[in-house]
Amino acid sequence: MKAEIISIGSEILRGQIIDTNANFIAQKLAELSIDLNYISAVGDNQKMLLSLLKKALCRSDLIITTGGLGPTEDDITYLIIAKVLNLKLIKYPEAEEFLKIFFKKINRPISPSNLKQTYLPEGAKIIINQYGTAPAMILEKDNKIICAFPGVPYEMKRLIEENLIPYLKEKFPPSMIKRSKILKITGLGESSVNDLIREYINGQTNFSFGIYANPEDIQVQVTTQAPTEKETDKLLQFSANQLTKILGNYVYGKDEETIEEVVGNLLKSKKLKISVAESCTGGMLGEMITRVPGSSEFFQGGVISYNAQVKEGLLKVPPEAIIKYGEVSRQVAKLMAEGVRRCCHSDIGISITGIAGPGGATDNKKVGLVYMALADSKKTITQKHQLFGNRQLIRLRSARRALNMLRIYLMGNNYKN
Amino acid sequence: MKAEIISIGSEILRGQIIDTNANFIAQKLAELSIDLNYISAVGDNQKMLLSLLKKALCRSDLIITTGGLGPTEDDITYLIIAKVLNLKLIKYPEAEEFLKIFFKKINRPISPSNLKQTYLPEGAKIIINQYGTAPAMILEKDNKIICAFPGVPYEMKRLIEENLIPYLKEKFPPSMIKRSKILKITGLGESSVNDLIREYINGQTNFSFGIYANPEDIQVQVTTQAPTEKETDKLLQFSANQLTKILGNYVYGKDEETIEEVVGNLLKSKKLKISVAESCTGGMLGEMITRVPGSSEFFQGGVISYNAQVKEGLLKVPPEAIIKYGEVSRQVAKLMAEGVRRCCHSDIGISITGIAGPGGATDNKKVGLVYMALADSKKTITQKHQLFGNRQLIRLRSARRALNMLRIYLMGNNYKN
Repeated sequence: MKAEIISIGSEILRGQIIDTNANFIAQKLAELSIDLNYISAVGDNQKMLLSLLKKALCRSDLIITTGGLGPTEDDITYLIIAKVLNLKLIKYPEAEEFLKIFFKKINRPISPSNLKQTYLPEGAKIIINQYGTAPAMILEKDNKIICAFPGVPYEMKRLIEENLIPYLKEKFPPSMIKRSKILKITGLGESSVNDLIREYINGQTNFSFGIYANPEDIQVQVTTQAPTEKETDKLLQFSANQLTKILGNYVYGKDEETIEEVVGNLLKSKKLKISVAESCTGGMLGEMITRVPGSSEFFQGGVISYNAQVKEGLLKVPPEAIIKYGEVSRQVAKLMAEGVRRCCHSDIGISITGIAGPGGATDNKKVGLVYMALADSKKTITQKHQLFGNRQLIRLRSARRALNMLRIYLMGNNYKN
Repeated sequence: MKAEIISIGSEILRGQIIDTNANFIAQKLAELSIDLNYISAVGDNQKMLLSLLKKALCRSDLIITTGGLGPTEDDITYLIIAKVLNLKLIKYPEAEEFLKIFFKKINRPISPSNLKQTYLPEGAKIIINQYGTAPAMILEKDNKIICAFPGVPYEMKRLIEENLIPYLKEKFPPSMIKRSKILKITGLGESSVNDLIREYINGQTNFSFGIYANPEDIQVQVTTQAPTEKETDKLLQFSANQLTKILGNYVYGKDEETIEEVVGNLLKSKKLKISVAESCTGGMLGEMITRVPGSSEFFQGGVISYNAQVKEGLLKVPPEAIIKYGEVSRQVAKLMAEGVRRCCHSDIGISITGIAGPGGATDNKKVGLVYMALADSKKTITQKHQLFGNRQLIRLRSARRALNMLRIYLMGNNYKN
């Protein structure tokens, strides 16, 4: 079966919004092993939409449109679908009933333009939209399936998940269940990951692999298919385990897991509390750690020691050390970590001090030079990094390196740098 | 002139990446008043790309493709463009010369697959890509213009800005220059903004307006056109001024300006230094303030007082106050702001304490309840907010409200809540 997505809305063609709807639907179709051949965007223009729909009916079996279902004159999707299929627009009483209840609830009268939304092409399987006002539909005609969903991403996603996906699963039970798993890697570059796993990848025939480089990590995606969900998941798990054996500790998580969640879970299980001392990151590390709900269980707080006065006053870094080594130095990073551990009464103190740029560099210390340290009751470990990117990327990479240093420490490994 | 964009890459159709390239190009075409009629995405598939290009040549005058210019077998853009236009692929010596220098610089030999990238359709105006390896092109034939640019967003953007835009400006000097201006608003909801400016908007015939709601602010976009850039800019400025008159202090910035930049500039011009005390935001406010390059000029640092111990130890909030009023209270917010101002030696101290959820709520204090305070040498002002959204949104909105409180204060206005 050949599928095609049509996004309808002049704001896409004017560049005012990015069409993320098509991406969502593409992902869902990929999961169902349905081949998607085209994605198109077209404005709220009768002639152009008509021409595109005609073409789509020639080349595709399943057409999914989003947008153009609103109450205004611009919203022409149902009108044009009816025209191209040679169908009448008819009133669907269930749509009117729903709107009556909806407007009663918000205590406003139904406007005539909303009533327009109760007219759909005859023969449509109407989908009442409880997340908005525009009903969606699935329409079968002459061995083609044409579906229309609203353009508001939240409404579209819910309606597609709750209606279109079950419909497609039932109508076209996939002979194979295709799934992907993502391994998230930090501390290695894309080419190093590639070098490490190339031999393994080349030896596999039942899996496909992708390596994606993000600003904050490298992701390896494994994809496979099998007749049942259970078999697919088992295969995926098997390949993920093999990859993890090769990549070792560089793999910090999988699928939706974030590094702060992984670190948070490790801290919880070990009943340890941390605190942070941040210079160039300005609070980013603390912000990341506290994204995790319930982080008060393991996070005490910290000091944003942007200025030397704060390093001295709150973290008790001796002024002599700052004068001798400079604010961005291994020694000061160490003293910051030890200082914050003490003043925040935590088991572990973590510090970051660096030059995020664009200013602040000297002959010896370039933009991107970052020192970090981790202090516990017995010892302090330090790391030096020379990071790349713009100011915000250097800060992001610093915070993530610090989280990774903590992760490796919590896993009981030595980590030298 | 009718334009059309074709994004080439199977990863778009598999839902692995969102096609942001098309959005960038759409914006650029809108600025040049060139009508964009279609955006399509198609996979790395010869037959489908050929069919789409044929259709595009029928319905459009200007076709801009991105993607499919890489060195692998999958990269078929030039091959198919040549085929559809009945042209030969020929070697462009300047492309080979560039690759030789490029690979010499990185000290690696040119691979045969890279040499493939030196073949383009005959008659093309080649664009050497200094940001990568794949050359781009502009090709005129039979009153049609076909352009091909790489799919890597960074390379594509640079090459289009430096080559395609000047080319189009010269070839099709727009009779009217169309421009937009964005006013950024905080502290008001979408419907309130709408209510305030509706009368003004409805009275305008030379401008079009859009109101967009983001998680962090409301944006009003004004668009107009005039025969010259100067006239367009003057008209836009005029309308923006009128809107600002209506919306007053709720307008915090325009176009690319961020609220942290606006606040940073105010602090610099007044030579004031600030510090922050953050509970539920965990460092987010500090992180936002330090996004601004050179923020050390006005930012001293702060305390992430996630735990009561830190509030007491570093900020010197009396334990009695925490017991009596609770950590999330107007009184504790006040004491935190005063405490951080003192311990960080700044002119102004700002604090945030709240319940970001999902846990932590009580009968009297719901998720989203946030207190904030601003202390200077003479007085402390406080605010109470009941915010909505998930944990991260409540935190984001808290940090932005605090920045806005600071902005209003620095502008010399009283701000009650």
